Amino acid sequence: MTSELPGLIPDIAAPDTALATRIQSLLDSKTKPTGSLGRLEALAVQIGQALGSEAPRLAQPQMLVCAADHGIAAQGVSPFPVDVTWQMVRNFLSGGAAISVLARQHGVALTVADCGVRQPFEDAPGLRQMRIAAGTADSTQGPAMSLAQCEQAIRNGRALVQSLPGNAVLLGEMGIGNTSAASLLLARLTGRESGAALAACVGRGSGLDDAGLQRKCETLARALAANADARTPLAALAALGGFEIATLAGALLQAASERRVIVVDGFITTAAALAACELAPNARPYCVFAHHSQERGHTLMLERLHAQALLDLGLRLGEGTGAMLAWPLLQSACAILNEMATFESAQVSNRA
Amino acid sequence: MTSELPGLIPDIAAPDTALATRIQSLLDSKTKPTGSLGRLEALAVQIGQALGSEAPRLAQPQMLVCAADHGIAAQGVSPFPVDVTWQMVRNFLSGGAAISVLARQHGVALTVADCGVRQPFEDAPGLRQMRIAAGTADSTQGPAMSLAQCEQAIRNGRALVQSLPGNAVLLGEMGIGNTSAASLLLARLTGRESGAALAACVGRGSGLDDAGLQRKCETLARALAANADARTPLAALAALGGFEIATLAGALLQAASERRVIVVDGFITTAAALAACELAPNARPYCVFAHHSQERGHTLMLERLHAQALLDLGLRLGEGTGAMLAWPLLQSACAILNEMATFESAQVSNRA
Repeated sequence: MTSELPGLIPDIAAPDTALATRIQSLLDSKTKPTGSLGRLEALAVQIGQALGSEAPRLAQPQMLVCAADHGIAAQGVSPFPVDVTWQMVRNFLSGGAAISVLARQHGVALTVADCGVRQPFEDAPGLRQMRIAAGTADSTQGPAMSLAQCEQAIRNGRALVQSLPGNAVLLGEMGIGNTSAASLLLARLTGRESGAALAACVGRGSGLDDAGLQRKCETLARALAANADARTPLAALAALGGFEIATLAGALLQAASERRVIVVDGFITTAAALAACELAPNARPYCVFAHHSQERGHTLMLERLHAQALLDLGLRLGEGTGAMLAWPLLQSACAILNEMATFESAQVSNRA
Repeated sequence: MTSELPGLIPDIAAPDTALATRIQSLLDSKTKPTGSLGRLEALAVQIGQALGSEAPRLAQPQMLVCAADHGIAAQGVSPFPVDVTWQMVRNFLSGGAAISVLARQHGVALTVADCGVRQPFEDAPGLRQMRIAAGTADSTQGPAMSLAQCEQAIRNGRALVQSLPGNAVLLGEMGIGNTSAASLLLARLTGRESGAALAACVGRGSGLDDAGLQRKCETLARALAANADARTPLAALAALGGFEIATLAGALLQAASERRVIVVDGFITTAAALAACELAPNARPYCVFAHHSQERGHTLMLERLHAQALLDLGLRLGEGTGAMLAWPLLQSACAILNEMATFESAQVSNRA
């Protein structure tokens, strides 16, 4: 724990390694060559450990999409206008966005949180009002958030998860400009602050061309310089992050403290996980990393988290779409563990 | 078409490239950055082309598992006893195998075909009797099948698919020793018949150790030598394949001719696809390759087929488990295409 703010970070139980051994033994008794279900077996062990059960059942999964605007968007780091954050939240709620379609496909409840979109929303079913401000400040000019704002966002995320049922949360986001915030966090938290090292943290987002990417790198270098003193995880999250990223970090910490399974989407949500796991390393084993994003920098993030993503489909949409696409694999992992026959029960001969 | 046997290979329609262009345009009108759903978009295009529709709906998907025994198993190429083929078919039918569990999870009907298991089965719900013989002959001593047996297996596969409803088939297999048959087909059909080239086609199957793998390579070299004259795709399939592999090849050809979407499982099923696509190259666009198997040689097979698998989870179980795990991605691809709002309908601004 490195929290400067008492009570901000919840206690999180370390994983039970003896339970992991028992679950692997169970998997090895099933009618299949040892280890032949590959990473699905490791996933079953991880879910069992998170839920504290040799017979884990995923219940009432919740897709939580956190949305906010970013002051740094004024620097032209995205090819889309800032209004798109607000428009896309409306699209999430009316069922037409990719995440709406995929959550519906899998029968997963979708909650969208306004963590600080520039233009406010009317109340709507499925929408949670968690606004800190009408977008962050421009981090090229100073901190994106005050520490107090960042702390409030983390507490909001914790409260959001506390209010949701079930034992699994899928996390996603929306925010024009937020690949910049995620890249900044990666750069700061892993010490890649200039030149080629910084460039390796920065990608095309929703579709920058080469010149746009070059400008984005220069803009992020200025933001890092303008916040040179924000070096602790919490200070970095405040200075360089975003309202939705801090809210997601809080949501993740709360979910881990409640021993929920956490499905982390792509580049921006992984940035939130990176910050959260720096604040509370015990949160890491509760996180399933859904997919390897096409966004440059995600590889470095996953390496830092010692994570291997389940899917690698060239996705770069965010919203939680990768988390939702990976969700059936978690259900499969539990089904294998809970429903497969053993060599003994099925009267199948094991290897000679 | 290279069939020596008139009427064996059905006519298969070439894909409609104009339709593909229209589907990609539709995808580009959806509320997401262009191309941001990565390979899910290519999958939507492929499914739309196969089904001949800009609004493809997957209906009544059928999981077909073909099982048979292999004479070459007598050479000790598998650590499991031959009886396991029969025992596992019973396990499939009674619901305890991995494929049973995963098909149930996804509500996909499971049909198991006895294509030539050593010990016969009583009739049972979900079982199709398609026996050619009580296992193939040992290919280290001569052809595994006669051409007539191979032709019958292909016709059986075609009849099986004809009898199944729906517009999508998922293909899997069971057969102790069948990674050997698949490796032999790969070696023969791609000209990798000795030394390191052959070794690159041969893997550990259900779990051989180093010595076992070495013996397997030597055994397969003998089988190739014993069938040196079997060089056309059909002759190679007969001499080196298996009843389940030939039945799967027939099933795939029939499915393609009926414009069904075909989900190909791992190493052995891909060997069937390889043979089928050599017999009828037009079948290839109907095939979705579900996962990249951990079995050595699968990479070479996928390369030969110009295929990139959807999943890469270190699976090496077969049965159709990888196909079943990938299935929700096909449903997602259709859902995205059919249900997402457009920039216009959702009043979302497109990029500047």
